[in-house]
Amino acid sequence: MKKLINDPNDVVVEALTGLAAAHPDHLRVDLTDKVVYRKDSPVQGKVGLVSGGGSGHEPMHGGFVGLGMLDAACAGEVFTSPVPDQMMAATKAVDGGAGVLHIVKNYTGDVMNFEMAAELADADSGIDVRTVVTQDDVAVKDSLYTAGRRGVGVTVLLEKIVGAAAEAGRPLAEVADLATRVSESGRSMGLALTSCTVPTAGKPTFALADDEFELGIGIHGEPGRERKPMAPARELAEQLLEPVLADLPRADGQPVIAFVNGMGGTPLLELYLMFNEVTQILDKAGVPIARSLVGSYITSLEMAGCSVTLLAVDDDMIGLWDAPVNTPGLRWGV
Amino acid sequence: MKKLINDPNDVVVEALTGLAAAHPDHLRVDLTDKVVYRKDSPVQGKVGLVSGGGSGHEPMHGGFVGLGMLDAACAGEVFTSPVPDQMMAATKAVDGGAGVLHIVKNYTGDVMNFEMAAELADADSGIDVRTVVTQDDVAVKDSLYTAGRRGVGVTVLLEKIVGAAAEAGRPLAEVADLATRVSESGRSMGLALTSCTVPTAGKPTFALADDEFELGIGIHGEPGRERKPMAPARELAEQLLEPVLADLPRADGQPVIAFVNGMGGTPLLELYLMFNEVTQILDKAGVPIARSLVGSYITSLEMAGCSVTLLAVDDDMIGLWDAPVNTPGLRWGV
Repeated sequence: MKKLINDPNDVVVEALTGLAAAHPDHLRVDLTDKVVYRKDSPVQGKVGLVSGGGSGHEPMHGGFVGLGMLDAACAGEVFTSPVPDQMMAATKAVDGGAGVLHIVKNYTGDVMNFEMAAELADADSGIDVRTVVTQDDVAVKDSLYTAGRRGVGVTVLLEKIVGAAAEAGRPLAEVADLATRVSESGRSMGLALTSCTVPTAGKPTFALADDEFELGIGIHGEPGRERKPMAPARELAEQLLEPVLADLPRADGQPVIAFVNGMGGTPLLELYLMFNEVTQILDKAGVPIARSLVGSYITSLEMAGCSVTLLAVDDDMIGLWDAPVNTPGLRWGV
Repeated sequence: MKKLINDPNDVVVEALTGLAAAHPDHLRVDLTDKVVYRKDSPVQGKVGLVSGGGSGHEPMHGGFVGLGMLDAACAGEVFTSPVPDQMMAATKAVDGGAGVLHIVKNYTGDVMNFEMAAELADADSGIDVRTVVTQDDVAVKDSLYTAGRRGVGVTVLLEKIVGAAAEAGRPLAEVADLATRVSESGRSMGLALTSCTVPTAGKPTFALADDEFELGIGIHGEPGRERKPMAPARELAEQLLEPVLADLPRADGQPVIAFVNGMGGTPLLELYLMFNEVTQILDKAGVPIARSLVGSYITSLEMAGCSVTLLAVDDDMIGLWDAPVNTPGLRWGV
C-alpha cells in the first residue's frame, strides 16, 4: 500500500486538520467529535443541515459544509459510519431554533446511528429533527452494508438544492418535503475499473482483472451487478444509463441535472469524455439537460471509475441549484 | 490499459466536446483548432491571455478559461505540445485591441511553438504579444523535454493572479511584468507513487516498485531526482519542501500562497493530510500562509502523487488572487 499518509489510524483526524487549515475563513473543525462546521453556525432562524458518513468519499461531506449547503458534516473512520454522539453534538450545535434536517445515505450503520442521534437530540434538547435517506443507486436491491438501495450521487445534488432552500429561510417541514422529493427524483449507477485500499486494511478491497470492470459498484467497493469485459466509453455509458433511465420517474419533456462523478482515481479528461457520451445518449432519448456537474465529488478513495446520476428537476429545484454556494467542494455565486 | 475512452486517438476531441457541453454558458470550443475560448471573447480593451500545452493535465488549461483567468487555452494531444497554428488562431481570436499575453510552461516544444505563433500573429495582424515562461520546478535543471527548469504548479497560480490583473484592465506591459514577477517568485516540487498511461501508448510510462516513490517527478512522468523507499507523509512533505524553501526568493516575514496539488490519482483525503504536514513545516520555518489551494489542478492523467508549490506574494498579488474568477476549475466571487 502506497499512500500519502502517516499512521493509518490517524488519517481522518490529520485530513480534517488539513481541511480546517485550508479553509480557515469558512470552516471550523471539532477534532474531538470529528465534525466539520460552517464557521458561522448556528445560523439563527435557519434550518440546520447535518450530514455525514464514513470518510474516504471526499469532498463529500466535509467539503460541502458552508453557506448554501451543509451546516455540519460528521466524519466516520474510512468507510465506517460515524457514531450517534457525533451526530447529536452536530445537531445541537447547528440548531438555530428552526429545527434540523439529517441527510443520510442509505447504509445500515448510518441510518441506525442518525436515527438514534435524532431521538437523543429531541429527548435531550427538544430539537425538531427530520430525516431524509437517499437511496438512488439502481444497481442492486440489497447490498453488503444496505437493506434497500444504496445512497450515492443524488446525495451531492440534494445537499446543494436543499441547502439553498434552508439558506432562503424556508421552514423545516418545507425543507424536509423538498429533500424527500429530490431524493425520490434521482437515480444513479456506477462502475469501477480498479479497487481501492482502505488504509487500515492495507490491501485492495477486491481484485479486478486487467480486462474487466465491475458494473454497479458501490462506493465502498461493495459488489455490483456483474463483472464484464472492458468496453469503450460509449458502451460503458450506455450500460450505466439504460437502467438509470428505465427507473427514473420523469414526466415527458422534464429536464434533468446530469452528474458524471469520478470515483477518485479517474482523471477529469476521462470524466469529460464520459459526459460527452452521456449528452449524446440523453439527446437521443429526448431528455433535456437543464444543468450538469462533472468531477470527483463522491469518491471511493483512489478507485478508478465513475458513476452517472440523473435528477429529474422542476423550476424550483433549478433555481435552488443556481443559488449561491460557498463550500470547499462547490462554490459559485459568492 | 483500462480507461474511460473510445479510440485513443479521439480522446482529446471527445473530452473537449464534453467540456463544452458541461459549460455552455461560459465556454465555446473550436474543435477543429482544439482551442477552448471564453464565451465572450474577445473582450474589447482587455489584454487577452492565451495558454495551452499537452492534454492530460486537466483542469489545466481548458478548465481555467473564463472571467478573471484565461481567454483561450490550446489543447495538444496528450502530453504533446499544441502547434503554432492553434496558438496563432487563439491569439487572433482573443485580441481585444490591448495585446495578448502567452503563458507558457517551460517545455521545449511549447516554448518554440508559442514563440513562432507570437511572430506569426505580429506579422499577420500586428498583434502585440508578450510571453511569460514558467519554470518553477526545482527538482532538476534539465529534463526529458526541457532545457532549464520545468514549468509546473506556479502556472496555475499565475493564470489566476495575472488573469485578475488583465480583467481589471491593466495594460499589457504591466500585465506582462506582473507575470514575470509571479513566475520568478514561485517554486515547486512533486513526487509520484505510480506512473500513468498515455492512451495512445497503451502501457505505463515508467514502473515503480510497490515500496518506492519517485522524488521530483515531472508532470509527463519525466524522471525526477531519485527513487526512494516509501515513507510517511510527514517525511515526504519534508523532502518536497526542503528544496523548495531553500530556493524560494522570499523576504523575511513575506507570506506565501501554499498549493498542494494532486497528480490525478490521489484522493482529496490524502491531499488535505499532506496540506496539514505542509502547514506544520511552514509554521516551524516561520513562513506565513496568506492563501492556500488544495486539490488536483495540474495533473498527469491518473498518476498517484502530489506536488507542493509555494509562491511568495505581496499585497497586490493577494488582492488579485481574491478577485472574482469564473472558470470550470476555479470559481469564486461571482
